[in-house]
Amino acid sequence: MTTPSRRELANAIRFLAIDAVEAAKSGHPGMPMGMADIAEVLWNDFLSHNPNNPDWPNRDRFVLSNGHGSMLQYALLHLAGYDLPLDELKRFRQLGSKTPGHPENFMTPGVETTTGPLGQGFANAVGKALAEKLLAQRFNRPGFEIVDHHTWVFLGDGCLMEGISHEAASLAGTWGLGKLICFWDDNRISIDGDTAGWFTDDTPARFEAYGWQVIRHVDGHDPDEIAQAIRTAKAETARPTLICCRTVIGFGAPNKQGKESTHGAPLGQDEVAAARAHLNWPYGPFEIPEAIYAGWRANDRGAAREAAWNRLFDDYARQHPELAAEFGRRLRGELPTGFAAGADAYIARLQAEGPTVASRKASQMALDAYGPLLPELIGGSADLAHSNLTLWKGSKPVTSGDPDANYVYYGVREFAMTAISNGIALHGGFIPYDATFLVFSDYARNAVRMSALMHAHAIHVYTHDSIGLGEDGPTHQPVEHLASLRYIPNNDVWRPCDAVESAVAWKAAIERREGPSCLVFSRQNLVHQHRTAAQLADIARGGYVLLDPPEARFDLILIATGSEVELAMQAARQLDAEGIRARVVSMPSTEVFDRQPLEWREGVLPSWCRRRVAIEAGVGDYWRKYVGLDGAVIGIDTFGASAPGDVLFRHFGFTVERVVEVAKALR
Amino acid sequence: MTTPSRRELANAIRFLAIDAVEAAKSGHPGMPMGMADIAEVLWNDFLSHNPNNPDWPNRDRFVLSNGHGSMLQYALLHLAGYDLPLDELKRFRQLGSKTPGHPENFMTPGVETTTGPLGQGFANAVGKALAEKLLAQRFNRPGFEIVDHHTWVFLGDGCLMEGISHEAASLAGTWGLGKLICFWDDNRISIDGDTAGWFTDDTPARFEAYGWQVIRHVDGHDPDEIAQAIRTAKAETARPTLICCRTVIGFGAPNKQGKESTHGAPLGQDEVAAARAHLNWPYGPFEIPEAIYAGWRANDRGAAREAAWNRLFDDYARQHPELAAEFGRRLRGELPTGFAAGADAYIARLQAEGPTVASRKASQMALDAYGPLLPELIGGSADLAHSNLTLWKGSKPVTSGDPDANYVYYGVREFAMTAISNGIALHGGFIPYDATFLVFSDYARNAVRMSALMHAHAIHVYTHDSIGLGEDGPTHQPVEHLASLRYIPNNDVWRPCDAVESAVAWKAAIERREGPSCLVFSRQNLVHQHRTAAQLADIARGGYVLLDPPEARFDLILIATGSEVELAMQAARQLDAEGIRARVVSMPSTEVFDRQPLEWREGVLPSWCRRRVAIEAGVGDYWRKYVGLDGAVIGIDTFGASAPGDVLFRHFGFTVERVVEVAKALR
Repeated sequence: MTTPSRRELANAIRFLAIDAVEAAKSGHPGMPMGMADIAEVLWNDFLSHNPNNPDWPNRDRFVLSNGHGSMLQYALLHLAGYDLPLDELKRFRQLGSKTPGHPENFMTPGVETTTGPLGQGFANAVGKALAEKLLAQRFNRPGFEIVDHHTWVFLGDGCLMEGISHEAASLAGTWGLGKLICFWDDNRISIDGDTAGWFTDDTPARFEAYGWQVIRHVDGHDPDEIAQAIRTAKAETARPTLICCRTVIGFGAPNKQGKESTHGAPLGQDEVAAARAHLNWPYGPFEIPEAIYAGWRANDRGAAREAAWNRLFDDYARQHPELAAEFGRRLRGELPTGFAAGADAYIARLQAEGPTVASRKASQMALDAYGPLLPELIGGSADLAHSNLTLWKGSKPVTSGDPDANYVYYGVREFAMTAISNGIALHGGFIPYDATFLVFSDYARNAVRMSALMHAHAIHVYTHDSIGLGEDGPTHQPVEHLASLRYIPNNDVWRPCDAVESAVAWKAAIERREGPSCLVFSRQNLVHQHRTAAQLADIARGGYVLLDPPEARFDLILIATGSEVELAMQAARQLDAEGIRARVVSMPSTEVFDRQPLEWREGVLPSWCRRRVAIEAGVGDYWRKYVGLDGAVIGIDTFGASAPGDVLFRHFGFTVERVVEVAKALR
Repeated sequence: MTTPSRRELANAIRFLAIDAVEAAKSGHPGMPMGMADIAEVLWNDFLSHNPNNPDWPNRDRFVLSNGHGSMLQYALLHLAGYDLPLDELKRFRQLGSKTPGHPENFMTPGVETTTGPLGQGFANAVGKALAEKLLAQRFNRPGFEIVDHHTWVFLGDGCLMEGISHEAASLAGTWGLGKLICFWDDNRISIDGDTAGWFTDDTPARFEAYGWQVIRHVDGHDPDEIAQAIRTAKAETARPTLICCRTVIGFGAPNKQGKESTHGAPLGQDEVAAARAHLNWPYGPFEIPEAIYAGWRANDRGAAREAAWNRLFDDYARQHPELAAEFGRRLRGELPTGFAAGADAYIARLQAEGPTVASRKASQMALDAYGPLLPELIGGSADLAHSNLTLWKGSKPVTSGDPDANYVYYGVREFAMTAISNGIALHGGFIPYDATFLVFSDYARNAVRMSALMHAHAIHVYTHDSIGLGEDGPTHQPVEHLASLRYIPNNDVWRPCDAVESAVAWKAAIERREGPSCLVFSRQNLVHQHRTAAQLADIARGGYVLLDPPEARFDLILIATGSEVELAMQAARQLDAEGIRARVVSMPSTEVFDRQPLEWREGVLPSWCRRRVAIEAGVGDYWRKYVGLDGAVIGIDTFGASAPGDVLFRHFGFTVERVVEVAKALR
């Protein structure tokens, strides 16, 4: 082989995908084979990256929203020279390999985003492109375009059928994300077969309706057409671009191409052999000739690219030292010096002042306190700014063009909002928060899960946290949501009982880099609780003793969160009047509490005391993990109702009398 | 007042909404005031209904997808003569009233669907319109259009921003639902203010891209334009119609109209007075002159309409007695005589034959067994027909025009699919099922909740139920989903351990009329379990003793579901070999088990035995409700991984050895 043709370069992707799927006996060869030619042109001629450093801040972001085609990405990373050796491709889909079934950002160098749940990669990419635009606004200076990169997305029909594609595309159009360029793999095949039966949208017209540039009728197997489309896309800087690529799924498998049978299963030995013949690929499984590698390897170009950027950045740092330092800090995800101290001072002041406010108001107060310390904070709400109280004094809309723009009006788009938050977090340079009513976390649920799976430092704010929201009724009243969010692995949920716990929760969420936090706030006022300095420090433990009888001798324990903590406190006083000594444990975050050393947990909930009552205006069974079969739970296991909040609390049995009664009934 | 003008009729809606919100001190006056003129034309000139009988099968369906404007619907129902007296309107948003904050189908006569979670009412309506079309195909005969009604939808900007609007509109276009007519309340205001900042879609172009008829530029305050648009919409029978109505939110409040301040709060005393003056409405709060009532009341027209239909139906019944009987049965939601016996016979046969298959395969076998008995069964999958195994021998696509059409290719649209199921169920005449992977129940989560809240008889099928699905990895592996679905009130979740339990679960879901069921099935094979006839009957109890040592004397209890039941069985045998006697409880449905009488529950899980181990490949803490603090749980509390399923079961500790070890370690 002399200089390989573009088709030969693309065939390397095809056969790596074919061979890896064959070896794994599972996987999705059809998409990599169909999009190989597009990927080849993009990666070899346009993608600005450095395989030696997947963390180079100004790299282009590449997102495979149709993540089942993971072998496309692994083949690209391997061929381009990332730290992903052929042995890893041979171990596709095996335990501990760097080549899991779907691309996982925390497993594989060069994978920007975990994809597979359709449509979300696209929305993540919208978040990344927004982050790029805002960072550029903030940090670039004349002659110093230190933030200047594209976000490239591969999309399948499935991504476009999903509702989130509507939400994300609409926002990308509104925001004019000119550096977002998406390739639609228009192969007219989804898992159930020919999409004519269930996907009749005029997709180009739809995207034009969102204000996108749409490039129609590109032959996804013609490198020149692809390259021309990319040039047209890059030339448009005010609108995102959708490039509609007509492709053949499983391209190159002579008997199966164009059919859904290539989508999600190995081609089989015979068809693999036929494809080798058909595409004139005489090499064995996982065999890539050096000439092919030579045509792909991007290490030198990438290193040169980053070196040039480094020189630019060094000049920038000389002329704008403070900006450069701040850019570095933000991209490294380090909090400003002084944040922790500032936050602690605010928390201490709040404890002293003792405001009785709704915790959603306390959340806004925390934003006002922390926001000025944190230029990386960017947030918004799904059309509930004045209910979620997500606007703070320093909020400036991202559509304003202001270099300090930090507020996103997401409209009524909970799912895309949350996935965009994830994308912003993964891009780097920002700590995103998003917000809606707790009950509508349902709409965003898989994106919350993806925050946690991807270790995305995103903060999800959920207000109107129980039947306490009142008249809007059961459609708006969360019941099962607290427990359900807590069950998402690597997701910290906080439900504070007053303004002080709210401020601590915000601080914890800002400081937690390993994953998301859900901050759950009330619509109604919550009574300020008295605390010693030690108790104040204990809040960060997730669960702590808020009230102990004299000498800490007690007969039973009341455990509560949020609005029910004051109820527990009143019940404890009532019990005390009847000669029964109760400890009150405030448990704003069960996940954080569960991570504490055994000594701490045993100190708060000693094993000897089985007389325990948990009180929370949500499903009761969740609390059996703390009260066991001997304790009792006061919860709500039905849907709520429409009435004023205080009426509902009485109606559903959240009263001092009932807590006292239940506590006394324990053996 | 002589004959009131159309505007005066519409003003009755406006002031009932204003006064009720004022009395409740909460609610949403803006939308009812803005859409009153549209509602007046639709209800007085076009809507085919009978206020005396909200259950008349051939009534038009009216869906208020922007459900926060509930007072619009209550005013309409009251004025038209439904059983909703003025006193109920005066008790708007109070405990136990028929006028909750959002319309609830189970609270108020004439409310077809519970709305409030934006976009879902629209998707429900698509389901209703599909049900109408299919029932007409099945039951109408020349000269007997006994099924012939429209589905009307009011939509706000919020509904159109939500992703589900994309999924549902796309399907409605593909299906050519000509009797679906939607009114877009284009008031350019959402809660955060002027939508120009976050909703820049060309919505008419978007709907045209879905194959809809779009009627642009209708003045939503001009009755003639509205009526003309409705006539144009009705004339188009092959495409759904979107009527774009330019309206003023809060129309008639002279100082606040057109502003977001009218959206979700009382107007306040001064503005109410100003509106009364501005609209020339001299009547007191809740005062409706008789002439206005006379212009609205639809009881006589409605009764005549239904009487005419009854005459038609009587003729039909004479000429097509079997069809008429079947129509009646299906609309009453009664199962065919013989279904229960047929199902029981199938279940008994299955127990005798003892197939070892994946439970998703067992689900398909159940469909093949029950489907021929149930012409009302209609189902589909979100582009996973061959993975969910939702196609059965009698499946015919709804796009086929076949009178027995019963299969829906939903494409990759989990949320709309589920909400459409809800709409089909609420329409009547069908029992819908839908399907996706368990992990993607997340995408549909609020629609599952709405099934339960609305008491919709819908069946949600979720396959690939654990890490057992293997190589697709953590994005596709449910962990928290079983527990999270169980926590939704009024939602029965079944996770069967073999083909027999799968068949029982399907039977239970078909027979349960009070709400939805989620049927959770495995990708991998599950070993058939031996059962006595009594045990076979016990499955329907949700939890039962599958194995007892001789004389039912045991030292500990192993509780398991699904694929982990066989693990428990093997562990019990191993323990027995070591002289430890274990009971094995199979618990396919915790909700059903929890509803059993105390005697049953105590019989299965006797209080004296605290040595209990729960085993389920999902979050462990859920099981503390059965094992308490003294027992143990073998679960999975982290995300899964990509590897073959059997490798993962070992990796995450689902082995006989571990179960034995954990059981022996119990005190």
